[in-house]
Amino acid sequence: MTRNEAPDSLRERLHEIIFEADTPAGKLFDILLLVFIVVSVIVVLLESVDQYAENYGRVFIVIEWVLTVFFTIEYGLRLYAVLRPWKYATSFFGIIDLLSILPAYLSLFAIGSSSLLTIRALRLLRVFRIFKLGHYMNEGALIMNALRASYNKIMVFLFFIMVLVTIIGSVMYLIEGEKNPAFTSIPKSIYWAIVTLTTVGYGDITPQTNIGQFLSAAVMILGYAVIAVPTGIVTNELMNSDQDAGAVNTQACRYCGKEGHGDDAIYCKYCGEMLENKLNFEDGEDEHII
Amino acid sequence: MTRNEAPDSLRERLHEIIFEADTPAGKLFDILLLVFIVVSVIVVLLESVDQYAENYGRVFIVIEWVLTVFFTIEYGLRLYAVLRPWKYATSFFGIIDLLSILPAYLSLFAIGSSSLLTIRALRLLRVFRIFKLGHYMNEGALIMNALRASYNKIMVFLFFIMVLVTIIGSVMYLIEGEKNPAFTSIPKSIYWAIVTLTTVGYGDITPQTNIGQFLSAAVMILGYAVIAVPTGIVTNELMNSDQDAGAVNTQACRYCGKEGHGDDAIYCKYCGEMLENKLNFEDGEDEHII
Amino acid sequence: MTRNEAPDSLRERLHEIIFEADTPAGKLFDILLLVFIVVSVIVVLLESVDQYAENYGRVFIVIEWVLTVFFTIEYGLRLYAVLRPWKYATSFFGIIDLLSILPAYLSLFAIGSSSLLTIRALRLLRVFRIFKLGHYMNEGALIMNALRASYNKIMVFLFFIMVLVTIIGSVMYLIEGEKNPAFTSIPKSIYWAIVTLTTVGYGDITPQTNIGQFLSAAVMILGYAVIAVPTGIVTNELMNSDQDAGAVNTQACRYCGKEGHGDDAIYCKYCGEMLENKLNFEDGEDEHII
Amino acid sequence: MTRNEAPDSLRERLHEIIFEADTPAGKLFDILLLVFIVVSVIVVLLESVDQYAENYGRVFIVIEWVLTVFFTIEYGLRLYAVLRPWKYATSFFGIIDLLSILPAYLSLFAIGSSSLLTIRALRLLRVFRIFKLGHYMNEGALIMNALRASYNKIMVFLFFIMVLVTIIGSVMYLIEGEKNPAFTSIPKSIYWAIVTLTTVGYGDITPQTNIGQFLSAAVMILGYAVIAVPTGIVTNELMNSDQDAGAVNTQACRYCGKEGHGDDAIYCKYCGEMLENKLNFEDGEDEHII
Repeated sequence: MTRNEAPDSLRERLHEIIFEADTPAGKLFDILLLVFIVVSVIVVLLESVDQYAENYGRVFIVIEWVLTVFFTIEYGLRLYAVLRPWKYATSFFGIIDLLSILPAYLSLFAIGSSSLLTIRALRLLRVFRIFKLGHYMNEGALIMNALRASYNKIMVFLFFIMVLVTIIGSVMYLIEGEKNPAFTSIPKSIYWAIVTLTTVGYGDITPQTNIGQFLSAAVMILGYAVIAVPTGIVTNELMNSDQDAGAVNTQACRYCGKEGHGDDAIYCKYCGEMLENKLNFEDGEDEHII
Repeated sequence: MTRNEAPDSLRERLHEIIFEADTPAGKLFDILLLVFIVVSVIVVLLESVDQYAENYGRVFIVIEWVLTVFFTIEYGLRLYAVLRPWKYATSFFGIIDLLSILPAYLSLFAIGSSSLLTIRALRLLRVFRIFKLGHYMNEGALIMNALRASYNKIMVFLFFIMVLVTIIGSVMYLIEGEKNPAFTSIPKSIYWAIVTLTTVGYGDITPQTNIGQFLSAAVMILGYAVIAVPTGIVTNELMNSDQDAGAVNTQACRYCGKEGHGDDAIYCKYCGEMLENKLNFEDGEDEHII
Repeated sequence: MTRNEAPDSLRERLHEIIFEADTPAGKLFDILLLVFIVVSVIVVLLESVDQYAENYGRVFIVIEWVLTVFFTIEYGLRLYAVLRPWKYATSFFGIIDLLSILPAYLSLFAIGSSSLLTIRALRLLRVFRIFKLGHYMNEGALIMNALRASYNKIMVFLFFIMVLVTIIGSVMYLIEGEKNPAFTSIPKSIYWAIVTLTTVGYGDITPQTNIGQFLSAAVMILGYAVIAVPTGIVTNELMNSDQDAGAVNTQACRYCGKEGHGDDAIYCKYCGEMLENKLNFEDGEDEHII
Repeated sequence: MTRNEAPDSLRERLHEIIFEADTPAGKLFDILLLVFIVVSVIVVLLESVDQYAENYGRVFIVIEWVLTVFFTIEYGLRLYAVLRPWKYATSFFGIIDLLSILPAYLSLFAIGSSSLLTIRALRLLRVFRIFKLGHYMNEGALIMNALRASYNKIMVFLFFIMVLVTIIGSVMYLIEGEKNPAFTSIPKSIYWAIVTLTTVGYGDITPQTNIGQFLSAAVMILGYAVIAVPTGIVTNELMNSDQDAGAVNTQACRYCGKEGHGDDAIYCKYCGEMLENKLNFEDGEDEHII
């Protein structure tokens, strides 16, 4: 608390700018970082297009190195600003941050064009850094909670789908296998079954025999009914979570253990003690790392 | 109020016919306008078909000019009838109205066939004019309100999808890139990922390697679960909005500030004062412009 | 009532067997009719396959004529059994019944193979006769009611889709038109937009330019969010109709005009008079015709 | 009860290990069985790929025989452990268990490569054995209950779809039949209608004529609205079942006949007697067979 009111050292001020978003400088830094990440991702994407690589190759290299230097400084400052650097360095976002700058330096030593390609693609891991700014998205938490609540059901459903496509794929292999050169093996037939059941329907593998076409028509109509299930599950969870006090919050009170507090709750509505996530926010403990 | 009861000037009578729909003449004008817009859109569509353009080219030109003259007169009358012509001319529908008639006149001066094509296509902006008749569609407002209420969640969801397809596209580029001539660059791989995840599945780009087919099968099954999220969000909002007093209305009372009035409410159900939108309707202020 | 208890004439007994389903003979007739309709539809389907037409052509002709004779007798008996034959003959099912037998007789006089093809296909109208047995499907009424309740919203939604695909199709025609031989005209581009937005994705027309692929990726992601709307509408209506007293029933009381009676209601819950549909059922008035 | 506390014979101990999952040994057996089933399914899948069959053919044969011997012993032990072996042998899972081991032995005697292929594919029936472990999946029961509750509605819906695709397919055959070599017969046109209406859209059969493309665009937009129906039905049922006391349970109390007990309920909440399914669990009656 005191730190927030009067940041008295460079380190604390840095921490506020880099990790938090409740000061003008902190917000500006977040926006700048977002722009740089998006730019660096776009550069990686365009660089993979031969046409652009030939014409603007130099521009891309310059932008790439400017951004790499910026990200390197940022990474250093993050290590300096946090209280426990090692914990940050080994956290998910710490590793992503490191992987965002490593490829550029590695590419200096890489020789084979094939390994260079992989190293360059590694830079795309930067796209994950966008999630750092996730604290702006309360809506995302709502969706995530609904998905987490329906996780078990979705998993069971996917398990059924797995078994289903194995059966369908095998039967189609027996029917089409000999007459249709596209159904070369059971795994390929399963691939076809997934393409069909999910209504993607590339058309690279299609049934040729009458029985095969009849069966696949049945599979499609089945898929029609089956596609309803995950939608029903997620809709159901979203409605349930929406009915619970406006916003969803799965945390339990540290003192009385009761759950069901709203996202805007600061104190437990059952025992009046301060809720854990509010404590964290005040202390900024976890915020350091994330 | 007085104007509605006894329209005493040509200008007011014109305004009633052109902008409002509560007199027989106003309704007739609306229907006539709808027919003319639809006819003019169909002419633009058919004109683009070589076969029809050759055989019926003259007919199209005649219809086009008749409609353009009608729309020009209508545009002039609108400018004359409204109290603040400049405000109308710079409003969304004012600009659309102008853009609906300009192309025909511009085509007289255009020389290059390429620019002519673009100018002609501009006439299709007329299709937006249909939304002018939107005051007939209360159902549309309900859907719009539900979509607006779920706007934030849908945006967050689309943001996740963007990041997801970037990752999937990049990984597929690394896997398929060298062996499959269709995966020429990361942007093209992202295009493939979108085509697959949305279950469109053109089949112009399909994975060829075993690993690629395995990964894309996983992406499809993922898409299967993911497609459930926006449906769940919109269904949820539609149900919420439906539970609120039959029809949705987000306005607050001008006097007491309370919300939750039905679409058919004329007076605030809490304090009895007249609601703002009803006042507007009586005055016709905003109606002039829209 | 008295007729049901003691059918004293051939005509009434026939009516009970052919039009109603609450006696063993009536049920048997319904099942027999269903089997005959399905068989006759299957014959028409198989006859269109060259391979089967050559090998089993004679068998098909025999089955066809046996069924036609049966359907002709049935049609005659229906005309005899109903109280108002003309009203039956001009009702939807009366016309379908006639169209089911006419093609066979017409084919005796038809000469050109092309007109014969059309006449033969007309026999498929028999498939509509299956809906006659619709009184077995209470579930169908529930779905139909939900669809009818959401009819307005779905129509408004489809109207938006129409405008949307017109805009998208036109823009794509401008972008792809010159470079891509598949986008020959605006109507064809609109066809592509519909194929894409509905996630069907044949792949017969696909964007070739970079801008075109970028735009179509945007269209797909849009379609992803848009597909949620009709699902949300129908789910909403299904839930609303389910909450209303178990089963949906849109009829109004003949005496007091109040609505909202359950499907199992015999008397109006507001005024205590007998409900119309129960009266009809007792009298069998409308049942004669349908 | 007593048996659970002190299993005093080999047979009872075997039963506990093989059929139940509440002892460490029983759980271990379940996990081992799951791994073996998955491995054997993967072997069958990979064996169908020519490339792997050539290189690792011997490895596959060894794994196959090891697993077959294990499954044979397991089958024998199951027959020994259950109280009524014949009832087990003729139950669904008993037959699946037998069919899992038979193909390997049959392949010793099979000569023709074609019949060998079918016999080998039969081994994939093992995949059904995974459902034996279904007692771990309470979530599956919830989904199954919702699907069962909406079974009638889904069936009526599918019936409508059947009639719809028959009509659409026939009309398209009349329109495209002569000009488009892909629409060879009505059944093939119906196959196209299903591929289109379910939004699979392979693209192996696509309309070529203008009228055909117009009609198929209408079919797609129809499919867009129609796909909403099964989703609405299942969502509705899932929500209904979810509102009933947290978890779904359709059983009635054996003593008082009241329904609506939670899945975790051991005693009837109305009369306090033990619930039937808990009794079964204690007795293990049905568990023997399943």
